[in-house]
Amino acid sequence: MIEIPARKGRAVRVAKGQRVKVINSRGQQVVDTWAFNAEDLREFMSMEHSRVAIGGIIPVLGDGLVTNRRRPILTLVEDTSGGVHDTLFAACDRWRYEMLGCTEYHDNCTDNLWAGMSALGLAPPETPAPLNLFMNIPVVDGNRVEVRPPVSTPGSFVCLRAEMDCIVAFSACPQDMLPVNGLAMNPTEAHFEILD
Amino acid sequence: MIEIPARKGRAVRVAKGQRVKVINSRGQQVVDTWAFNAEDLREFMSMEHSRVAIGGIIPVLGDGLVTNRRRPILTLVEDTSGGVHDTLFAACDRWRYEMLGCTEYHDNCTDNLWAGMSALGLAPPETPAPLNLFMNIPVVDGNRVEVRPPVSTPGSFVCLRAEMDCIVAFSACPQDMLPVNGLAMNPTEAHFEILD
Repeated sequence: MIEIPARKGRAVRVAKGQRVKVINSRGQQVVDTWAFNAEDLREFMSMEHSRVAIGGIIPVLGDGLVTNRRRPILTLVEDTSGGVHDTLFAACDRWRYEMLGCTEYHDNCTDNLWAGMSALGLAPPETPAPLNLFMNIPVVDGNRVEVRPPVSTPGSFVCLRAEMDCIVAFSACPQDMLPVNGLAMNPTEAHFEILD
Repeated sequence: MIEIPARKGRAVRVAKGQRVKVINSRGQQVVDTWAFNAEDLREFMSMEHSRVAIGGIIPVLGDGLVTNRRRPILTLVEDTSGGVHDTLFAACDRWRYEMLGCTEYHDNCTDNLWAGMSALGLAPPETPAPLNLFMNIPVVDGNRVEVRPPVSTPGSFVCLRAEMDCIVAFSACPQDMLPVNGLAMNPTEAHFEILD
């Protein structure tokens, strides 16, 4: 079991056929997730292509997330979290926190992606839109989106099966100015495990 | 009035404060739209950042689309089309048509973006998720998305005001295997005009 420290990022190599179990250790913690083809980082999991592939805005059991070349990369094979995730929102970044009033550096999911990849000696070609595991952004009235606290409970998890050799990156979202990570606005650590 | 030929792409320089009027000349024709900061193409209109900024999945009058650095780039200032647009779906590409059964080359919005920019001597840094003007992709039951014919009538239009000097690129979507461009599945030309 590997920790994704609170407010920080981590990346890991996952072989085709292995599963990544992402555990919401304390509950209500959003985990931004990316996946890149290990052979060519320019091919990566794409939310805009995945919504077309799965015919929805939230992956459900059995759904295959696809890359920007429309090839399956991660399949959702287990989910005890309540099934509420987000594909609509960009990863938070320095500009987001500046707009929210931060005058000093704030940890953010974008920098966490780059730091997690960098620890493996890698750099992503860009910052793709993430799969925001456990994030609760409903579409109401056909258009408006709302930021609501996650429904995931402590210890609940999702399992994602790798459909190609890939690098999977995570960020334990450091958002503490909106209820993205629960009404307490207290970002916590999460964990993952690679299963054969 | 400049034509976006049926199935093809076109790009244009737009100065801050100018408006781009995009006309659905024959009705029910989707126009994929991108915008790049003219000073630095790595900054571009981003759907995942714009959904956060506007608090919705479809821009309405007065909404400002923002870049991947969260700065306003285009504002929707006029819309006679019925107000149905899409920010969820990726631009079509060769892989999409291969999956739909095409065995030969099919025009596609991704190649059209690159061709339109290339005609200006430019290359985009990547293929951002487009603003799919006039495209009708409702979210039903809180999750599933449906591909429906556009509601836009012949001659209806939108006006987008440039909030910075930018390159705006268009593709008259060549999708003729799904009712993206109407039940007739007959892609047509569209037009645009730059207004001071």
